[in-house]
Amino acid sequence: MKKLINNPNHVVDEMISGYIKAHPNHVKLLEENKRSIVTAKPTIEGKVGVLIGGGSGHEPAFMGYVGDGMADAVAVGNIFASPPPDPILEATRVIDKGEGVLYIYGNYAGDVMNFGMAADLADLEYGIEVGTVLVTDDVASAPIEEKEKRRGIAGEFFITKVAGAASEKGYKLNELVSVANKANDYTRSMGVGLTPCSLPQTGQPSFELGEDEMEIGLGHHGEPGVEKGKLQTADEVTERLVQDILTDMPISSGEKVVVLVNGLGSTTKMELYIMFNKVNEMLKEKGINLHRSYVGDYSTSLEMGGASVSIMKLDDELAELIDHSADCPMFVQK
Amino acid sequence: MKKLINNPNHVVDEMISGYIKAHPNHVKLLEENKRSIVTAKPTIEGKVGVLIGGGSGHEPAFMGYVGDGMADAVAVGNIFASPPPDPILEATRVIDKGEGVLYIYGNYAGDVMNFGMAADLADLEYGIEVGTVLVTDDVASAPIEEKEKRRGIAGEFFITKVAGAASEKGYKLNELVSVANKANDYTRSMGVGLTPCSLPQTGQPSFELGEDEMEIGLGHHGEPGVEKGKLQTADEVTERLVQDILTDMPISSGEKVVVLVNGLGSTTKMELYIMFNKVNEMLKEKGINLHRSYVGDYSTSLEMGGASVSIMKLDDELAELIDHSADCPMFVQK
Repeated sequence: MKKLINNPNHVVDEMISGYIKAHPNHVKLLEENKRSIVTAKPTIEGKVGVLIGGGSGHEPAFMGYVGDGMADAVAVGNIFASPPPDPILEATRVIDKGEGVLYIYGNYAGDVMNFGMAADLADLEYGIEVGTVLVTDDVASAPIEEKEKRRGIAGEFFITKVAGAASEKGYKLNELVSVANKANDYTRSMGVGLTPCSLPQTGQPSFELGEDEMEIGLGHHGEPGVEKGKLQTADEVTERLVQDILTDMPISSGEKVVVLVNGLGSTTKMELYIMFNKVNEMLKEKGINLHRSYVGDYSTSLEMGGASVSIMKLDDELAELIDHSADCPMFVQK
Repeated sequence: MKKLINNPNHVVDEMISGYIKAHPNHVKLLEENKRSIVTAKPTIEGKVGVLIGGGSGHEPAFMGYVGDGMADAVAVGNIFASPPPDPILEATRVIDKGEGVLYIYGNYAGDVMNFGMAADLADLEYGIEVGTVLVTDDVASAPIEEKEKRRGIAGEFFITKVAGAASEKGYKLNELVSVANKANDYTRSMGVGLTPCSLPQTGQPSFELGEDEMEIGLGHHGEPGVEKGKLQTADEVTERLVQDILTDMPISSGEKVVVLVNGLGSTTKMELYIMFNKVNEMLKEKGINLHRSYVGDYSTSLEMGGASVSIMKLDDELAELIDHSADCPMFVQK
């Protein structure tokens, strides 16, 4: 696939360089590590730090979500690969204000290992307390009985939003871990893949599907889904995704939710809003109260074609945190 | 190409329906016309109305830019087709507060005809004064001697941003026309196309290019560009685009600019930031002062692959208007 790049081995570093230069009032690169990006805003004393990260290629996730009301720092890995412990550790040291740091990351073996190692080192080397929330929103990736095996996908946006807002509101580390875990427990996502992306270094498609096929539950690095079949209409696909979510996490009439219809890269906003239309109709039929909606590219897989639906159930605490303002290079909420 | 849609004939109406339901605090549909979307916020008395519009398929343009600090209304056409006069006229009537309405649209025959007709009817039928700014930022579409023949592309974002801010600051209609025309005079864009999009109704690619080809200056509906050739590196392509802009509109060392690196649909944010990196380097070398940067999908062509660079020269007035806050469903600036 054609790409506007220079050297395939330098895409991540060049992206970071452009990003830092485009948004100097928002973000800066740590001198200690060129894969650690931290907020450029003055840090609030006594605030628990929020650190996110993971592989590149999911932009705006995760890099784009550093700023007021979201994360204080991000550790940036290579494409679809976890960052090593170093950039995580360096960022931890810089954003810690004595109240500890919360790590938010998706449930992938590499991330679990590297963030875990960084957390141990932060404690050992600097005496910094680290809390962790492992994002496991992807319904398709394991049955409910093994929710701890599920992968994290676009729903991580909600968990970051909740934790970022809570940390600004003065939550202590243990309270932050608790509310972020609640956000994860209350969040479910289901995706569909249509067309593959390709890694700059290999140029090979991340998966193969026929000209008229889709794959339900396909992971956002191309991990196998739960069902391949003929491409259906937007309404049929959306109904399937939402139904799977609601079967996994029943939501009663009168309950409040926030919805994200997320594009994987090359799927247009037109298609995402057509899907949202169906999500909205289904929630309305069930008497579920739609508190707020996000539609767009929030967590992509390079130029993959497809979309996901994420739903987070809201209690009053989560609703207030979701409504909190945010100001990041790739996400602003008034 | 695979698309998540229902009936290809209903994509625009279903998109609008989803859009309105996703953002009820921001936008509403006019009862009088289902292709007229207006701001849901209370209108400021005495404010000149700002109306944008054009074909669908360019989302976030134009639909996504209705809200505080941007447009008061949008008239939505079919995919890549101008809206007819009706939705323009109805929206004009609703957003006029006695001070007149400014129309902003790209220089395409259909838009010129339909917005022109709506302006005449607004005057004749309702006595509403309408001012117009025709966006002509695409350097590749005609030589400088015939700038009035140039098409409008992603640079329209700047003109809308400037006019929306100025109207909130209390500019009268003639002042608004004047500052919006200045913004257009000071804006240049150059694009590159890599891969086509396809219209939902035909499924046919919007243009053809070889597996290793790019086209400089390709229009955002697939209009022929100025040069086809082998795909070059991001740095080479960006250098060409920026050089063409600076040749067309010389900018002196010490002058201030705002930059937009815009994705056409399926080009990743990673690639856009890599391109931005080069834009930034070139401006720096020339001593040009980068006041603010936008990088992302601001005006797409469905899932087309490619990007454009837009540069607007800033005097103090334009810089202040660009820095003004905005709050729209698809664009928020603090």
